[in-house]
Amino acid sequence: MDHSHIATPERCYADFCLIPVGTGNVSVAEEVAEVQRLLKSSGLTYTMHSAGTTVEGSWDEVMKVIGQAHSVVHAKGVIRVQSSMRVGTRTDKKQTAQDKVKRVENILAEGSTGS
Amino acid sequence: MDHSHIATPERCYADFCLIPVGTGNVSVAEEVAEVQRLLKSSGLTYTMHSAGTTVEGSWDEVMKVIGQAHSVVHAKGVIRVQSSMRVGTRTDKKQTAQDKVKRVENILAEGSTGS
Amino acid sequence: MDHSHIATPERCYADFCLIPVGTGNVSVAEEVAEVQRLLKSSGLTYTMHSAGTTVEGSWDEVMKVIGQAHSVVHAKGVIRVQSSMRVGTRTDKKQTAQDKVKRVENILAEGSTGS
Amino acid sequence: MDHSHIATPERCYADFCLIPVGTGNVSVAEEVAEVQRLLKSSGLTYTMHSAGTTVEGSWDEVMKVIGQAHSVVHAKGVIRVQSSMRVGTRTDKKQTAQDKVKRVENILAEGSTGS
Repeated sequence: MDHSHIATPERCYADFCLIPVGTGNVSVAEEVAEVQRLLKSSGLTYTMHSAGTTVEGSWDEVMKVIGQAHSVVHAKGVIRVQSSMRVGTRTDKKQTAQDKVKRVENILAEGSTGS
Repeated sequence: MDHSHIATPERCYADFCLIPVGTGNVSVAEEVAEVQRLLKSSGLTYTMHSAGTTVEGSWDEVMKVIGQAHSVVHAKGVIRVQSSMRVGTRTDKKQTAQDKVKRVENILAEGSTGS
Repeated sequence: MDHSHIATPERCYADFCLIPVGTGNVSVAEEVAEVQRLLKSSGLTYTMHSAGTTVEGSWDEVMKVIGQAHSVVHAKGVIRVQSSMRVGTRTDKKQTAQDKVKRVENILAEGSTGS
Repeated sequence: MDHSHIATPERCYADFCLIPVGTGNVSVAEEVAEVQRLLKSSGLTYTMHSAGTTVEGSWDEVMKVIGQAHSVVHAKGVIRVQSSMRVGTRTDKKQTAQDKVKRVENILAEGSTGS
């Protein structure tokens, strides 16, 4: 059975945290800033938080920019780069990252006026 | 060699994303809201974002509350719960989640006024 | 500054764990088996373990096949799919997944014959 | 509402990948080996694979040993340690890591003799 024609998802979100390994420098803020510049230039929607960055777009666009993020950090002389990612896709609706947070906040707000 | 006496870190942050499995319900907002209530009652510092929640405290406190989050979701009838976590510890300084974001924002702000 | 031309890494490994959300079925073994068939047909090197599957190849190939894995599970009627991934790239050598395990086993073997 | 009495799960598995940050050394094999020694001395069931290690036991035992792993690596002079983890709990049965792999392998074996 040939699977090569299967399309990747049209929409996804990926939350990733990239770590330069073996740099001799405890701070990774410089590398994170460089990655933020790359994300900005990509035109994709993204949000940085204290434990990572969430990017939204098509699967191919999102994965391309995270791969480029690895390349950008390697280009600064870092030999090894490790990322942890959470990726989500759904076929029922286009829910943005902001929608998700709002949904939970609404449930919490209703709950606090109740019993 | 006995390792049982080794202490766990005094301070850590954990960014976690909990997923109820096999519920027949696509939305996990109810479960996420219940976990937010648990976190509030724990007294630990935490921040929710669209792809997870970051908690700060001692290793034992943080891991206890995430374990309790699994229990709380199981108590609602969910048979299987899966979490993905990023955990960080450091021995040099007490850097909060907010400090980390500010550090990167400063680098970005300097860069944009420079060349 | 234009980043669109930056190449993604030529080589990477990705360890991923895919979870179908909202299926009403606690077991995910059927979906995991379908993903294994997809991986086999991709021609990439991969290894399944109890907590995920490790794939090796170019960044673009590896990310394509994981995106296709999401599509394959969606095609079975699963509305939401979530993956957690660890991805690593390095510029110094081509170390396979097997090399990494062997390196650690060697250190452990030396240690046990030592003091 | 007081949640402090809620028990953590009696059983879980955690698959983790620990990364020493800022060591100036690209290889992490020494640190991984040290963590394997710690796991062995813990008495818990664990399996190393090329992208991490899976540990099984009660929530508290498993999280304690991973916290100790951070401490052990810090004790070697590493200032910052980052782990990515996947943790799973279920209330219906005691499925070991090995059971899970076997279940998928059986489905694949049946499929290949079928149409």
